[in-house]
Amino acid sequence: MMNEFDLIDHAFRQKLSFIHSLTSIPLGDDASVHAVPVDHELVVSTDMSIAGVHWPHDFPLQDAACRAVNAALSDLAAMGAEACWVWCCAALKDGAAAELMGEGIAAALSGSGIELAGGDTVHAAENSLSVTVAGIVPKGQAMRRGTARIGDDIWLCGRLGFSALGLRRWQQGERTEAAVNAFRDVKPLLSEGVDLRKAGVSCCIDVSDGLLADAGHLADASCVGMEIEVSRIPSYIELADQLDSETATSLVLAGGEDYALVCTAPPGLRDVLSAIAARIGHCVEGSRVRALLDGVETHPPQRGFDHFA
Amino acid sequence: MMNEFDLIDHAFRQKLSFIHSLTSIPLGDDASVHAVPVDHELVVSTDMSIAGVHWPHDFPLQDAACRAVNAALSDLAAMGAEACWVWCCAALKDGAAAELMGEGIAAALSGSGIELAGGDTVHAAENSLSVTVAGIVPKGQAMRRGTARIGDDIWLCGRLGFSALGLRRWQQGERTEAAVNAFRDVKPLLSEGVDLRKAGVSCCIDVSDGLLADAGHLADASCVGMEIEVSRIPSYIELADQLDSETATSLVLAGGEDYALVCTAPPGLRDVLSAIAARIGHCVEGSRVRALLDGVETHPPQRGFDHFA
Repeated sequence: MMNEFDLIDHAFRQKLSFIHSLTSIPLGDDASVHAVPVDHELVVSTDMSIAGVHWPHDFPLQDAACRAVNAALSDLAAMGAEACWVWCCAALKDGAAAELMGEGIAAALSGSGIELAGGDTVHAAENSLSVTVAGIVPKGQAMRRGTARIGDDIWLCGRLGFSALGLRRWQQGERTEAAVNAFRDVKPLLSEGVDLRKAGVSCCIDVSDGLLADAGHLADASCVGMEIEVSRIPSYIELADQLDSETATSLVLAGGEDYALVCTAPPGLRDVLSAIAARIGHCVEGSRVRALLDGVETHPPQRGFDHFA
Repeated sequence: MMNEFDLIDHAFRQKLSFIHSLTSIPLGDDASVHAVPVDHELVVSTDMSIAGVHWPHDFPLQDAACRAVNAALSDLAAMGAEACWVWCCAALKDGAAAELMGEGIAAALSGSGIELAGGDTVHAAENSLSVTVAGIVPKGQAMRRGTARIGDDIWLCGRLGFSALGLRRWQQGERTEAAVNAFRDVKPLLSEGVDLRKAGVSCCIDVSDGLLADAGHLADASCVGMEIEVSRIPSYIELADQLDSETATSLVLAGGEDYALVCTAPPGLRDVLSAIAARIGHCVEGSRVRALLDGVETHPPQRGFDHFA
């Protein structure tokens, strides 16, 4: 079997030779070194994904790794940052896992303009991938969770519920590409996040745990209540056409990991935002997030996804 | 049991409220946001540590986590960077592990001026910790591996072999504090790294895999050979006094994870460096690293530590 250094080289470095123009020392030294342009700030997030929790044990590892990198990048989208660099710590069962994990990381970054700037591999009983992502944003312009105001509209950019549906199909044994593509091929909405920021949006989150749970994070951080009209969510219409209304409601409100963006903005931004996103509700007094279907509050069977619950 | 968000809050955030002066958005949003001062660059490294590989299964988890953070920070020391931020991804067997891991991270960062800027927790069958560290360095001054030149002296800053000895003692059942302290309490030589950089050193690495293995990385990247005189290594004298010469040689040459710094510098820097480090050899033509004891080449039984070998 290859030794650790060969593995890192073979699985990661050879597949990923892109170096970002802001990088002065790339992967291969004790640390990587990068410039951050004047009048910009550094934006950093970290995410861990593990077999059996974030993907089924029988899911292709290269797809799982690609998905984990894209999921991590979604946090940069939610900040309105331009993604530049990724660092990956891979726990690997064997050399074959290293090869597949490297393929998946390469697939996620290929052609993206994002550099794999470092990594580490360890031998473990279970495959997992910890991904740290970094980007840049003009100073003071990062979108955040705590700036929603009463009277703001709530906007949705991207689709909801299809990833959870794809995962359910996989778990039911439907392994055809079409059935699981939405779970397999999540894309971080990086250019959309930048567009939202440039349009003047200051409050945003990506939907990883489910719309109600993540809108709840915005509401908590901003000290507002929220009312969301389910029938205004484009994915609900699509899913209700394929399935029944109850399942569609559950998928769009509680089905996580599509990595759509939810943001709030004052009504003055409606013209510019309606080209990018769908207006699905508004911020009200209070502290609860209420989802309304035909004027009646609806409760999905579960609120988001909690690894320790 | 607490849910995931409470766990993160309880184990990490509450214990670690320090916010670095360069941080504009700390832990708690989708990502953290930080300024990098003009004329400085960002330095980033990532490291993964896992129970059973990087620490014995019966080692106290809080000590293991503290050790993992300090080991990751050592890569910033090797670059001559000022450490600013840490992001931690913890795979945890249960809530008790979260509590202990949080304690260990807090212990490593307490009073250091380094901020825990983000993290993630997942439920796993084995405890592990992936640590991403970042700091700043004046533009173009990061120390690296590939700048050693033939004729340079080789310098050692810090102790070697004691961590491996402490681990051996633990594995032999000697659980007294003194016997295992060197394994438990590794300290990244951050201020020493900055001092070496300011003294004009451009080539440096931290000793994580063992002196011969890590000096080999410098030799490979710089296309030089190296001759190291074992009797000039202060730790060798100390260890040979306690143990036999063969064991002492093996510990200082192949015992990893003390996180000493090895660097090279032209003879013109001897006066300033002799106050910080010990001169243990010099760079020669060739590509091999040779360790000499009384003029004779000595080979330790193993060269470094390789997780996949």
